[in-house]
Amino acid sequence: MIQSPPIGLSPRLRSTPFTKRVEEAGVSSYTVYNHMLLPTSFASLEADYVHLKNAVQIWDVACERQIEVTGPDAGWLVQMLTPRDLSNLKIGKCYYVPMVDENGGMLNDPVLLRLEEDRYWFSIADSDLLYWIKGLAYGLKLNVKVREPDVSPLGIQGPKAEDLMAQIVGDQIRHLPFFNFKRFNFNSLDLLIARSGYSKQGGFEIYVEDFKLGETIWDTLFEAGANMDVKAGCPNLIERIEAGLLSYGNDMTNDHTPHQSGLSKFCDTKKAIKCVGRESLLEEIENGPWRQIRFLEILGKPLAPCRDSWDIRKNNIFVGKVTSAAWSPDFKTNVAIGMIHRDHWEPGTVLIVETPDGSRELSIKNGPMIE
Amino acid sequence: MIQSPPIGLSPRLRSTPFTKRVEEAGVSSYTVYNHMLLPTSFASLEADYVHLKNAVQIWDVACERQIEVTGPDAGWLVQMLTPRDLSNLKIGKCYYVPMVDENGGMLNDPVLLRLEEDRYWFSIADSDLLYWIKGLAYGLKLNVKVREPDVSPLGIQGPKAEDLMAQIVGDQIRHLPFFNFKRFNFNSLDLLIARSGYSKQGGFEIYVEDFKLGETIWDTLFEAGANMDVKAGCPNLIERIEAGLLSYGNDMTNDHTPHQSGLSKFCDTKKAIKCVGRESLLEEIENGPWRQIRFLEILGKPLAPCRDSWDIRKNNIFVGKVTSAAWSPDFKTNVAIGMIHRDHWEPGTVLIVETPDGSRELSIKNGPMIE
Repeated sequence: MIQSPPIGLSPRLRSTPFTKRVEEAGVSSYTVYNHMLLPTSFASLEADYVHLKNAVQIWDVACERQIEVTGPDAGWLVQMLTPRDLSNLKIGKCYYVPMVDENGGMLNDPVLLRLEEDRYWFSIADSDLLYWIKGLAYGLKLNVKVREPDVSPLGIQGPKAEDLMAQIVGDQIRHLPFFNFKRFNFNSLDLLIARSGYSKQGGFEIYVEDFKLGETIWDTLFEAGANMDVKAGCPNLIERIEAGLLSYGNDMTNDHTPHQSGLSKFCDTKKAIKCVGRESLLEEIENGPWRQIRFLEILGKPLAPCRDSWDIRKNNIFVGKVTSAAWSPDFKTNVAIGMIHRDHWEPGTVLIVETPDGSRELSIKNGPMIE
Repeated sequence: MIQSPPIGLSPRLRSTPFTKRVEEAGVSSYTVYNHMLLPTSFASLEADYVHLKNAVQIWDVACERQIEVTGPDAGWLVQMLTPRDLSNLKIGKCYYVPMVDENGGMLNDPVLLRLEEDRYWFSIADSDLLYWIKGLAYGLKLNVKVREPDVSPLGIQGPKAEDLMAQIVGDQIRHLPFFNFKRFNFNSLDLLIARSGYSKQGGFEIYVEDFKLGETIWDTLFEAGANMDVKAGCPNLIERIEAGLLSYGNDMTNDHTPHQSGLSKFCDTKKAIKCVGRESLLEEIENGPWRQIRFLEILGKPLAPCRDSWDIRKNNIFVGKVTSAAWSPDFKTNVAIGMIHRDHWEPGTVLIVETPDGSRELSIKNGPMIE
């Protein structure tokens, strides 16, 4: 079994505004996300991890494509798309919104930004949400425009992220609360910046609104961060598992509901919300989900990350699967995420997981390593 | 600039029923297609090409996912999805169907199979067509079921493909016409087999209807083809450009209409068809498209394939772009596909293309190299 063959590059796997800089910085592997290149390592998974937790990294997350919904029916449509109550979503706020189909199956788990009264962006995970929203809008004959604008997020993540951003746009960025966004002046540009990102190390995302600006903004960040050990980085598998950050397509798919995905706190299903899939979700809430995501520890020596999911058994019966796993240098154990049947999901339960390295004991944790 | 960094494997990039065999056969690079692994080379692009044209190859094209539409409104919905007239689509036939949004922008270019009166499969190119069809069906309140069934196509391509298939399912397969499918008995299995595939070397696609059958069917084909020099292969960039086979996401996107994509012969836009985007397409037909796909030749020494599109200029003005290119050992030239502005698309026109290897002369051809 080969571990990592090369990727066959073609225009279909879109480059980003930052790809040239990413390659100059020594990207060592790519994945494909929303038909776009996403770096998965630079020095190594472990070295990137240590650096992320100690300094500041610039992440090419342009693959978090934006789906813009504008027009008189935008607010109504956006609420139709998620079981989360959006009635308090103010301009300048970000909401994490599970999105489901008529059966309650998850279609994506984007971050929703309200830009104006009738203008929203979904900052999406890896599926063509544009198609779902356009299909619904057409079928329901809504007065909206749905498109993918020229917007490419750039992440600034790590404990020194705030200091770096303050160098560029001034100290007022220190007052921006988590999951809020605001426009900040940088040279003659008006940059939309959110306090957000796919790590628990703190940080920001700049929504770069013009492909041609990518390298200038990248370079500015590296110049400003020269004395902060700034490096190119990317979402880090180890850190995101420690932090309990889910990955759509890995940890849950459209075969899973938000309640199974442990996202009940982002659902207001019982409120009188008009959204797709509400009836199915209400039915599930009645009895509770039959399986749910749990944070796990796999005992024994370091395991290589999952390339396919790993079956979990109890007395030789299938009771779930591990969908993400990595050796954690800080916690000195294999941290993991998996979907577990209800009879076996109590914290402390010990089960058996079939890894490519053989059977291992696995234990169910109370929550992720980093809260 | 690095050419081919490794791919970071994870469950999100789904393995196929054939992945284990593909890796045992020495796959040397992968792309990602419909969130699934698709091999792009084995020995090398050139060696694979020579072998494809002389023998027979088994292709893991499981990434051609099927979207199944069933139910009383299936026929009506399927016609809504394409400007091609489906009134003569009989059970057992395959149709190549451009699919467009309300603006006429292409969403996918699948092959449509009619399995039963009210049961269809779209064998899709690289976009989440499931989302578009589900969104439309929900919005229009149609009585249909839309899902991705457990079906994984396996290609048998090359001049010896028919002989190989006859070994397995008998000589009656020789009478199966192009773009027709039928069920054939193999051991106790009932295999759905079409005469189709993404090459001009002749061949078939087996629609493997159970993930667990993948390796058995793969192995059977290799045993039966032992004396035919059967090898693992994959869609070959050089051969598909020579053959004028388009690649959705490379040669056209939702920014292009079917008429711009040279697919007018698969559109019956002027007939009284009820389909999404018809008004926009009719408007375009009025004046003719302002740009269109052309088959091209780039002069000079061999070029590496495009990883991003290449701008085409005339007197320093942008007049189009090359979206696919490869050196053809048989035609001893760089064959290419591109989108060209109407003022410059006449066969014989010579333009300048900006390649990573510098400026080159490019000439517009009458059609693809292999008709």
